[in-house]
Amino acid sequence: MTGERVWTAALVVIGDEILSGRTQDKNVAQIATWLNDQGIRLAEVRIVPDDQQRIVEAVNALRASHDYLFTTGGIGPTHDDITVDAIAAAFEVPVVIHPEARAILEEFYRGRPGGLSEARLRMARVPDGAELLVNPSSGAPGVKLGNVYVLAGVPHIAAAILSELTGKLEGGLPIVSITVGARAAESDVADLLRETEAAHPGVAIGSYPFFKDGRYGANFVIRSADGALARECGDALTRQLEQAGYEPVEGGI
Amino acid sequence: MTGERVWTAALVVIGDEILSGRTQDKNVAQIATWLNDQGIRLAEVRIVPDDQQRIVEAVNALRASHDYLFTTGGIGPTHDDITVDAIAAAFEVPVVIHPEARAILEEFYRGRPGGLSEARLRMARVPDGAELLVNPSSGAPGVKLGNVYVLAGVPHIAAAILSELTGKLEGGLPIVSITVGARAAESDVADLLRETEAAHPGVAIGSYPFFKDGRYGANFVIRSADGALARECGDALTRQLEQAGYEPVEGGI
Repeated sequence: MTGERVWTAALVVIGDEILSGRTQDKNVAQIATWLNDQGIRLAEVRIVPDDQQRIVEAVNALRASHDYLFTTGGIGPTHDDITVDAIAAAFEVPVVIHPEARAILEEFYRGRPGGLSEARLRMARVPDGAELLVNPSSGAPGVKLGNVYVLAGVPHIAAAILSELTGKLEGGLPIVSITVGARAAESDVADLLRETEAAHPGVAIGSYPFFKDGRYGANFVIRSADGALARECGDALTRQLEQAGYEPVEGGI
Repeated sequence: MTGERVWTAALVVIGDEILSGRTQDKNVAQIATWLNDQGIRLAEVRIVPDDQQRIVEAVNALRASHDYLFTTGGIGPTHDDITVDAIAAAFEVPVVIHPEARAILEEFYRGRPGGLSEARLRMARVPDGAELLVNPSSGAPGVKLGNVYVLAGVPHIAAAILSELTGKLEGGLPIVSITVGARAAESDVADLLRETEAAHPGVAIGSYPFFKDGRYGANFVIRSADGALARECGDALTRQLEQAGYEPVEGGI
């Protein structure tokens, strides 16, 4: 496994509604999971307000330091949707109407009241040079420019755009993740965890405590790009926990 | 309201489990809401992996550019808990055992099997010069150094530490938020929203579409540090929506 190329992505979540606490973000978890299936590791997330300069700074910092950058939010038809303008500013290109996006929207709104109004036509605006990302769930497409993928903020629309991208991005090996749970206080098994991780280079063990049904416990998550190694480490941890008098639960508690 | 000092905070969420998609973050929303009650605006969030250098970079960038910086995660007793070391590295101070933290943990683990083991004593390690943040829900305290507040990652423990901090941080006016919903497609009311916002300087209107019970709709969130102005704008938006033939729903849909 040594020397295996690791592909990384970053995510910029754009939205006052997340930073105000009004809306619970769901895109981080769903994009993280999808990226892992593509063999790409989500390495950093930034959540920024609906402010062009702040978006530009985050986009330019992260698109330079990762293979891929995703953004969510701010691509609808209203005045607070400024993501396309911000991406264009980050790339120093003008905003243009994409003829294919216009055609998609014309078709989508044909026969609906108002037709393709000026507000709706806003959703055909793209940074010059961008490609469209098919959005099977509504008219407004996502946008790709360079290594930046611009998705909607509504989670099911973001998911629909991702589903169209599945298998199309170059990546490495997905991380294999194995969970072993035990009714153990973390602090009682800290040495055992450290030693098991140290004995399996290429594997990371995370420890996630909980308090459930009046008892302490923890789930131990073993992660590696080498599936066989992850399973070997999981088996070793299971044996160690058994020997220490804890009842390990495969798959976690 | 003009010239009112705006207090801002940033948050660094530390955790491979969030970036892998395994765990759904809940701290962003709860800290955002709590901060708003203190008159402090959450202005940026970064989610970084359990990697000291990445934590140091995020902490140093954000503590310099905001009044307050919060972190969550990585303060437990296991090998993957590296936040204290990272904060110490960011401030270029050594890690020391805090005598009061040691006393708290000695008391907490007195009579429990294993007592204050070496692993548990890890939770008394702090960056030199740090104060403790009382943690009423378990033994391990949070830590404050300069303008950096280090909280646990488990949401109910983070909440317990926050509850002890309530009313103790200097802030400005909380943002007042008023929601008006309507069974309107966003794109049909885009002009109306833009004009209503423009007519009320000091107010921001966010538009959040949904698809529910087979119908399109959107919630419009009016936010301002001036409560009277927010209510005035909410009333104006309600009238505009009525006049345009939509039935506004106070409080949102």
